[in-house]
Order: sequence, then C-alpha cells, then structure tokens
Amino acid sequence: MIFNELQVPHQGGAYSITIGADLLADNRLFNNHIVGSQVCIVSNTYVADLYLAKIKAHFMDRQCDVLLLSEGESYKTIESVMQIVDFLCQHNHHRDTTLIALGGGVIGDMVGFTAACYQRGVSFIQVPTTLLAQVDSSIGGKTGVNHPTGKNLIGAFYQPTAVIIDIDTLRSLPQREFLAGLAEIIKVALIQDAAFFDFIIAQAAQILNRDNDVLQQIILRSCEIKRDVVMCDERECGERALLNFGHTFGHAIEHCLGYGTWLHGEAVALGMHMAAALSCQLHYIEASELKRITDLLLQIGYQLRLPDEIDPQQLIYAMSHDKKVYKNRLNLILLERIGFACIKDDVPSGLIEALVYSYKS
Amino acid sequence: MIFNELQVPHQGGAYSITIGADLLADNRLFNNHIVGSQVCIVSNTYVADLYLAKIKAHFMDRQCDVLLLSEGESYKTIESVMQIVDFLCQHNHHRDTTLIALGGGVIGDMVGFTAACYQRGVSFIQVPTTLLAQVDSSIGGKTGVNHPTGKNLIGAFYQPTAVIIDIDTLRSLPQREFLAGLAEIIKVALIQDAAFFDFIIAQAAQILNRDNDVLQQIILRSCEIKRDVVMCDERECGERALLNFGHTFGHAIEHCLGYGTWLHGEAVALGMHMAAALSCQLHYIEASELKRITDLLLQIGYQLRLPDEIDPQQLIYAMSHDKKVYKNRLNLILLERIGFACIKDDVPSGLIEALVYSYKS
Repeated sequence: MIFNELQVPHQGGAYSITIGADLLADNRLFNNHIVGSQVCIVSNTYVADLYLAKIKAHFMDRQCDVLLLSEGESYKTIESVMQIVDFLCQHNHHRDTTLIALGGGVIGDMVGFTAACYQRGVSFIQVPTTLLAQVDSSIGGKTGVNHPTGKNLIGAFYQPTAVIIDIDTLRSLPQREFLAGLAEIIKVALIQDAAFFDFIIAQAAQILNRDNDVLQQIILRSCEIKRDVVMCDERECGERALLNFGHTFGHAIEHCLGYGTWLHGEAVALGMHMAAALSCQLHYIEASELKRITDLLLQIGYQLRLPDEIDPQQLIYAMSHDKKVYKNRLNLILLERIGFACIKDDVPSGLIEALVYSYKS
Repeated sequence: MIFNELQVPHQGGAYSITIGADLLADNRLFNNHIVGSQVCIVSNTYVADLYLAKIKAHFMDRQCDVLLLSEGESYKTIESVMQIVDFLCQHNHHRDTTLIALGGGVIGDMVGFTAACYQRGVSFIQVPTTLLAQVDSSIGGKTGVNHPTGKNLIGAFYQPTAVIIDIDTLRSLPQREFLAGLAEIIKVALIQDAAFFDFIIAQAAQILNRDNDVLQQIILRSCEIKRDVVMCDERECGERALLNFGHTFGHAIEHCLGYGTWLHGEAVALGMHMAAALSCQLHYIEASELKRITDLLLQIGYQLRLPDEIDPQQLIYAMSHDKKVYKNRLNLILLERIGFACIKDDVPSGLIEALVYSYKS
C-alpha cells in the first residue's frame, strides 16, 4: 500500500491531502501541520470511541482540548457552531490554535465554519472518517451549517491547513454510510471522467467488498477530480457548480424529508438519477447511457423513487429556494454525455415538474 | 466641495470608497454597485428615520426589503446576525442579492458578517453614518460580532463591494458619538503620519465645530492611511496590527464595563493614552510628546481615567483574553515616536499592571 499526497493550491496558499492506511498513527504527519501551542479536537462519541486516543497521543506536549458533539445532520446548526466557539473561549484558545475535525461531513463542515469565524479565522485540519467526507466535503473549502429553510445556507469558503485521509477508518463505517459515500464518487466520474466511470462499473464488486487497494484508487481519483475542479474556481462562479450534479434535486429531497432521514449521498444518488433522466429526455444523453447509470445505481442498492412522504409540489418549491437559483432562474447541472456535465438555466419548468411527478412512488 | 474616490485593492479584486456631501441622493452611485435584482437594506430606527427614504428611492425597480435592528453594541451578537439571515431566507434572497449596511459600526460589522456567511458570501455596500464607521470600521473588511467572553470574537475578513461616505450624515450625529469617532482619526495620525497629527492639533477648533471642509479632509486622510495599511496586510499578520493602537486596553475597558456603556472610541481614546504613557515609560517617546497627546485628548474632552466600576485586576485579566494574544504573549502596539508605531510582545507584565493601577480613579 502506497501513500498518496495531493497538493491543492488556492488563493491564499496551498494545502496537502494525504491518503493512505494507518495515517492516524502518524505523529509526524499531524505535527507537521500545527504551528501554535494549542489544539482542539472536535468529534462525536461514535468516532471518538474508535480513534480519539490515537490522535490525542500526538499532542502530549501541547494544550489539547476535546469537544464531542451530537451526531447527525440535524445538529449541523449555528447553535452547534456556537457550542464550539463557547468551548474555545472557555479554554482560552488564541488565534494561533488549530482545530481538528475528526469525523464525517457534518463535523468537518461545522468545524471548518467555526475555524473560519473564530477570531476571524484560525487553522484547521480535516480528518474525515467517512467515505463521503473523504472524497467530497473535506476538500474544496466549503464549510457551513444548515438553516431551517435550507441546507448550508450559512457558511464560508475557508481552506483547511491539511486533509488527512486514513482509509482504515472505512472499516468501521456502517454499510449504509459507505454506500452513500460512493454516490459522490460516481458523481465526479459522471461529470468529468468517463474512463473512471467505466472503472467503477468494472470494479463494482471489489468496491462493494471494500477492497483496500481499489478503495485507495477510487478515493485518490475522486480527490484529484474534485481538486482540479475546485482549483479552477475556488468560489463557485463557474466550473465548480458542476460538482452540484444531482444536488439540486438531492438537497430538496433532504429538505423535504427533514435533514438526516435520508443520508446526503442517498439523496444525491436519487438526485443524480433524476438529472440523468432529464438529460436523456432533453436528448443530451442516450437511453443506453441512462441505462448504464441506472444499472450501477441499482446494483449499489440506492432507492431511485421518491419516498412516500414527499409531495412532489413541496419538492419543486424547495428546489426554487436552493442556493443554485441565480437571477431568479433555476440552474440545473445536466449530462451532455457520461464524463461531461453542463449547466442549464433554461429547462422549462413544466418539464421539471413532470419529471418530479414521474418519480412519485 | 469636491467628491473624493479612493480605490482599495484586495486579494479578490478592488472596491471604491466615495467621500462627499449629499451622496445618499446619488442614484447612479448606488446602482453602479448592484448587479442582481434584490437588495436588502439593514439599519436601525434612528438612522432609518433620517435617511432610509432617500436610499430606498434608488431601488424602485428592484426587490428592496428593509430590516431595522435594535441599536447599540449590546446587540452586536450572533443572534442579530441570525435575525438578518432569517429575514433574507423569508424574503427568498438569492446568492446575487446585495446587502446595504446603513448605520454605524455595529450595523456595518453585523451586515458585513452576514454577507460573508449568507449562502457562503453575497455582496454588500457599506453606508456608514457615524464618524467612527466612516474612518474605521467600514474600511478593511473586518466584520463580526461580540461573544460574552470578548469583542469581535466571531467574524470574518470580508470585503464590501463599495463604501459610500456621505459627510452630511455627520450633521445628525450626537456630539458624544462624533467625539468618539475622532479618536480613530487621532489614532491613525499617531501611528502613521506626524504631519496629520499636527494638522489635527492646528485645526482642532474647526474640527470640533464640524466644519465641512476640514471634516472631509480628515476623513479622506484617515481612509487613505487605513487603506494603505490594510492593502499591505489584508489578514492582519503584521502591519495591520498597528491599527490596534489603543485597542488592547480599549477593548478590555469596554469588556469590563459591559459593551455599550462607554462608546468604542471613548475606550480607545483612554486606551491610546495608556499605550502612549507606557511608550513614554519605556523611553520610546519623550514626555513632551506625551504631553501633546494628552493635551489634544483633554481638549476634545475624553475621560483619561478608568471609571470607578473597573477593578484593575479584572482589566488585566480581560487583556489576557484579547485576540492580540499570540503564542500566549500579549502583543502591545506602542509609539516609537508620534507618527510611528511598533509591536512589542516583551513588555514586562509588572509594568503593564502598574500602569493599569495608575489609571485608577
């Protein structure tokens, strides 16, 4: 097993993503990225039980405080961020402190946003322990929390000091979360790299068996694609919007169900299918291409119908409140072909409505 | 009367500061800086009564929502920011909206931070109506709110789209606020420009009479100095820290009294005097230079003793919790001479304590 290291340049400098096995035990790796004398590890009970001791051991000669938060998307709120801020104030953390986000996307997004805001910005390290966080949310500097009216409505673009991806942490990941993470890997393949999509289909059985070598390969490739897209467009004015493929539908599904009912990746998987189906209806992709996508998504076991609880009209309303509405037009990411996505702001609303209704159970 | 326009370049682009009389009535000026179809003006009742109608008139053909917040430093909280976010969500403001901060530093800091966080960043225009906000808080991109344990502990560096300074708004400014604003003008003179300090002393009577020509001159020069310092150091790693002259003491005074008891500028005036006295004790500046500073501050009418309610020990504790503590050392901004400030992290704590006690009433 080889370690991989990717450099991610950005406006204010650059950071590294390190991918490999047993990285949590790497004292040098962690301490290389810490400048001050204070560290605050933020995690949740489940993850902390598994990995906290390993990481804490690296900071015996620094002030190291640990805050464990409640788990789950429903706690990704400004109140949780204020809980972290209160904790940092109580423990007198200064501007040169380093926050460490140990956990999934929820922890990473919240700790990143706290790092962006605490004293107008402190350092933070992403240590993602879920597949979703490893390939998606920990890279690119999007941080934030949800608001009752929409997902990630409050946040900042703020880059980490380092991202440390220990693929061994995937062994403890519940199957449902593992599968949800695969959705974002399939997403980057669909929007950017047809050969990678072919690879995923060819290796589907090994992936589902969590073969370590194949996992490291697909995580690395996903991180590379995301890195390349984000590098071109740090603040999401153009290219980066392609990463939202499946997300306009997906976010609206999560919003209608209440955050945390479906996992983000599950909603994105269905959202991708809806976007692919729309791309097919608009004659961008062939029916055979849609079928390949459908087959893979079904093989993994995603639900590709809207859950009973969702009223299609409510879903359409939620989509109109998405951040991707620009100049009052809904921007949709569609596929021109597998491996090539595009942004469209002129899809007739009647077509979108009919599509949403066609997914009703 | 001539309009002045300053350009402020920053990492992500540049913005302009326009300074002049009757600018609030300038339709073209406002609309030049707005790209989307939505505007949200945030202000407070006092300021809105005076100027809101004038500004609203520029946006007859856009969606223009108005939110009036409670006045005063004690409302500069994350709760007020969330009130703005809730309002923007309720009125369905998209990523291309423009927020307009109409008011003093509290409104500007909160609206700026909201703009930084709402949908990970939207445009905002600063329309400062107090002298303090015109020469200090509206320039340089520092935004944020207070936390029970410290001032501006939660915030972001986020640049406005434009700053529009209508000096006519100073006519309605209460005398106490006007004088508090002068403190920041004296501050930039003391740290950066001895000739400007001489000018302020020479023109003190006209300044206190609010002579429009002299006001425009000193506002322009203050904005220039602040712009130049901020340009060198957008994120406050070095040079920019000099702008905190008087602020380590000043923030601690405000914190001990409870925000809003003294005005920020009043606390900074006393804080500057303490820093100047310390500079004199350390033989950086002459006793005659300290006397010129003391005389000017007394002529303006600042209180140069600690208020009875402040226990010196409490003040010293508050200073140790300031953001300017770095690697556990208190960084103080001192004067090497009038017009030239420096950062010191090695002032003996015994000396600081004795100084604080010497200001006890």
